[in-house]
Amino acid sequence: MKPIDYENAGEDVRAIFDDIKSTRNAPDVSNFWKYLANDPSMLNHVWSTMKDVMGSGGHLDPAIKELIYVAVSTNNSCDYCQVSHTAAARAKGATDEMLQEMFAIVSLANMTNRLAIAYRVPLD
Amino acid sequence: MKPIDYENAGEDVRAIFDDIKSTRNAPDVSNFWKYLANDPSMLNHVWSTMKDVMGSGGHLDPAIKELIYVAVSTNNSCDYCQVSHTAAARAKGATDEMLQEMFAIVSLANMTNRLAIAYRVPLD
Amino acid sequence: MKPIDYENAGEDVRAIFDDIKSTRNAPDVSNFWKYLANDPSMLNHVWSTMKDVMGSGGHLDPAIKELIYVAVSTNNSCDYCQVSHTAAARAKGATDEMLQEMFAIVSLANMTNRLAIAYRVPLD
Amino acid sequence: MKPIDYENAGEDVRAIFDDIKSTRNAPDVSNFWKYLANDPSMLNHVWSTMKDVMGSGGHLDPAIKELIYVAVSTNNSCDYCQVSHTAAARAKGATDEMLQEMFAIVSLANMTNRLAIAYRVPLD
Amino acid sequence: MKPIDYENAGEDVRAIFDDIKSTRNAPDVSNFWKYLANDPSMLNHVWSTMKDVMGSGGHLDPAIKELIYVAVSTNNSCDYCQVSHTAAARAKGATDEMLQEMFAIVSLANMTNRLAIAYRVPLD
Amino acid sequence: MKPIDYENAGEDVRAIFDDIKSTRNAPDVSNFWKYLANDPSMLNHVWSTMKDVMGSGGHLDPAIKELIYVAVSTNNSCDYCQVSHTAAARAKGATDEMLQEMFAIVSLANMTNRLAIAYRVPLD
Repeated sequence: MKPIDYENAGEDVRAIFDDIKSTRNAPDVSNFWKYLANDPSMLNHVWSTMKDVMGSGGHLDPAIKELIYVAVSTNNSCDYCQVSHTAAARAKGATDEMLQEMFAIVSLANMTNRLAIAYRVPLD
Repeated sequence: MKPIDYENAGEDVRAIFDDIKSTRNAPDVSNFWKYLANDPSMLNHVWSTMKDVMGSGGHLDPAIKELIYVAVSTNNSCDYCQVSHTAAARAKGATDEMLQEMFAIVSLANMTNRLAIAYRVPLD
Repeated sequence: MKPIDYENAGEDVRAIFDDIKSTRNAPDVSNFWKYLANDPSMLNHVWSTMKDVMGSGGHLDPAIKELIYVAVSTNNSCDYCQVSHTAAARAKGATDEMLQEMFAIVSLANMTNRLAIAYRVPLD
Repeated sequence: MKPIDYENAGEDVRAIFDDIKSTRNAPDVSNFWKYLANDPSMLNHVWSTMKDVMGSGGHLDPAIKELIYVAVSTNNSCDYCQVSHTAAARAKGATDEMLQEMFAIVSLANMTNRLAIAYRVPLD
Repeated sequence: MKPIDYENAGEDVRAIFDDIKSTRNAPDVSNFWKYLANDPSMLNHVWSTMKDVMGSGGHLDPAIKELIYVAVSTNNSCDYCQVSHTAAARAKGATDEMLQEMFAIVSLANMTNRLAIAYRVPLD
Repeated sequence: MKPIDYENAGEDVRAIFDDIKSTRNAPDVSNFWKYLANDPSMLNHVWSTMKDVMGSGGHLDPAIKELIYVAVSTNNSCDYCQVSHTAAARAKGATDEMLQEMFAIVSLANMTNRLAIAYRVPLD
C-alpha cells in the first residue's frame, strides 16, 4: 500500500495530521502516519493512544518513556520503530549513555529470560 | 534439573551466593540463582553482568532499569522474570502508576511495531 | 546456500517443481522453492503440506487462508513470506480493505496480548 | 495489580463496562477489562479500538476476524487471549473445522517463515 | 478440542499411531499426537516430516538433533515441546552437561542477537 | 552509534580486542565487537562469556555449538548473528548437510511448537 500525503488526504486524516504536527511541533508527519492513513479509523485510534501514553504529565519522564519504547521495538526487531523512537528519545533528552544502559538491560533480560525458561525455574 | 541450595553448593558457588545476598541485603538467593548454580561458570558470568548493569551509579535510576527489565520480560512472556523484577522494581521505588505507564508503552509499541511491519513503512 | 533452478535440479526436485507450477498455473516456482530444493526431502514435505493446507475445498475460503498466513508472517517479521503471501491473497480475491482490517486485528491482538501478560490476567 | 469490579469502579470505568456489556450482550465484563480498569485511559483506548476493529460492518466476517485474533494470540503464546477469543470465534460461528484449518496455517507459516529466514531467500 | 485415543481413532489415524509406536518402541503415543489426531491430514504431514528429520542416518547425531529441537522450543517458550524433547534428548544420550551447554548457548545468543539489533551492526 | 576501531579504542578495549584476535587467530575483530566497544563493561562481559561458552573443551563439539547458535539467531531473525555464526560454524567443520538438517529441525520445531500451543496440549 502507498503512503498518503497531506495533499491527497481526506478531511478527517488532515485533521489528525494537523494535530500530530502541532503536538510535535514538526513541519510534516513521519512515514508511519502516512501509511496508516490508509485506514483513517486506526490512524485515529493509534494517534490518540500515542498522544496520551507518550505525552508529558505522567509518572515517567518523556525521555524514559521513549527508552522503554525503543527497548520493546528492539526486542521485536522493528527497525523503523527503533530508529524513529531513538530519535524521539534523543530529542527528549536521552543521552548515548542512557541508550547504552538500556541496550545492556535489554540484552541481559533476554539472556536471563531464556535461562529461567530453560531451567524451568518456579516462582519464589 | 534441580536447584542447588547453599548447603549443597561448592565453594565457588557459595562465594557468588554470598555476594548476591550481601549486595541485595537478602537472607537467601532466589530460585533463579539456585537453578543456574548447576552451571557455576554461567552463574558467575550472569551475576557479574547483572551486578554491573542493574546497580546504581549509572545514568538511569535503578527503579527505571527494573521497569525496562520488566518491559522486556513481559514482551518475552517470561513469567518468572516478570514477577521477580516487578518485585525488584517496587523495592527500588517504582509505583503502580509507573508500572501501568510502562504496561501501556509496551502494549502500544507492540501495536505500532506490527503496523510498521504490516505496512512495510520505509525509514524516514 | 544457492538456489537450484529447474535446469540444475534432480528428477525428484523437478517432479515437485512441475507439480507446483501446474497447481499454481505459474511459469516458474518462486525463490522459496528453489532454495528449499537444496533439501529435497524437506521440499517434498513442505510442498505436500502447503498443497493440502492452502488449497480450496476446506472450510475457509482460500483468500482468508492467505490472510491468516500473512498475519502470522507479519507477526514473525518474515519479509519474504509477507510479500509473497500478500500477492497470493490478492490473487485469490483479498482486497485492500480486507488486508487493512487484518493489519488492524494483528496490531490490536499484539496490544492486548501484552496487556493480558503484563497484568497477569487469570482465565475467566 | 488487582481486578476492579463494577462495584468498586469509578464513573468513567462504569460507563465503559456498561458499553462492553451492552455491545456484547453479556451480564459482566471479562477479567481482561477488570484488570485494565486500573488504567482508565487505556481501558478507553483499547475498548474503543476493539469495538471498531472487531465489530461487524467491515469487509471480513466477524468469525473470521476472531480466527485471525486467535492465530496471532497463539503465535504470541498468550493463553488468556487464545482462550477468550476462541470462545468469541465460536460464539460468532467458527466451527472446529475452521479452527483446525487455522491451526494448520499458523503452524505451516511458522515452518516456512523460519525456512525463508534460514535460507535467506531474496524477494522474487 | 479433546484428545483422540487409539480406541476412538479412525483407521487412518490408527495406522499413524501404530507407526509412531513401533518407530519409537513405545506403548502409546504422547498427548501431542492425540490432539493432532483431530486433523488426520496434519497428523500425517507432521509425523512423516518428524520421522524423516529427527531419525538417525543423517549428518547430525540424533541426540544433537533433539538438543537443537529443545533449544528452539525453549526460545519459543513452548513448555510442552521443551519437556517432551528434553526427555527424547536424554533417551538418545544427551547428558546434563550437554543440556547445560545448550542452555548457555541459547541464552548467550539471545543476548548478542539483541545487542546486534540494538546497535544496528552492519554485516562484516 | 558508531563503531570503535582499534586506533580509537581505549586501553581496556584494546586489551579485549587483542584477546579476541589471538583467540580467534584473526587479523581484526568483527563489527559486532567494534559497536559493543561503545560500552566497554558490556564488551568485557559478553566476550568473557562467549569465550567460555563457545570454546572447545566442553561436552559439545565447537561446530555443534555454532549450529545451535545459528538455530537461535535464525529463530530470532537476527541477520547479522545468523551470517556471522554460520561462517563460524563452517570454519569449525559444519557442512552444508549439517546446516540443512539444522534448518529442517528449526522449522519443524516452530511448526510443532505452535500446534502444541494451538491445541493446548497438556504435559504427558
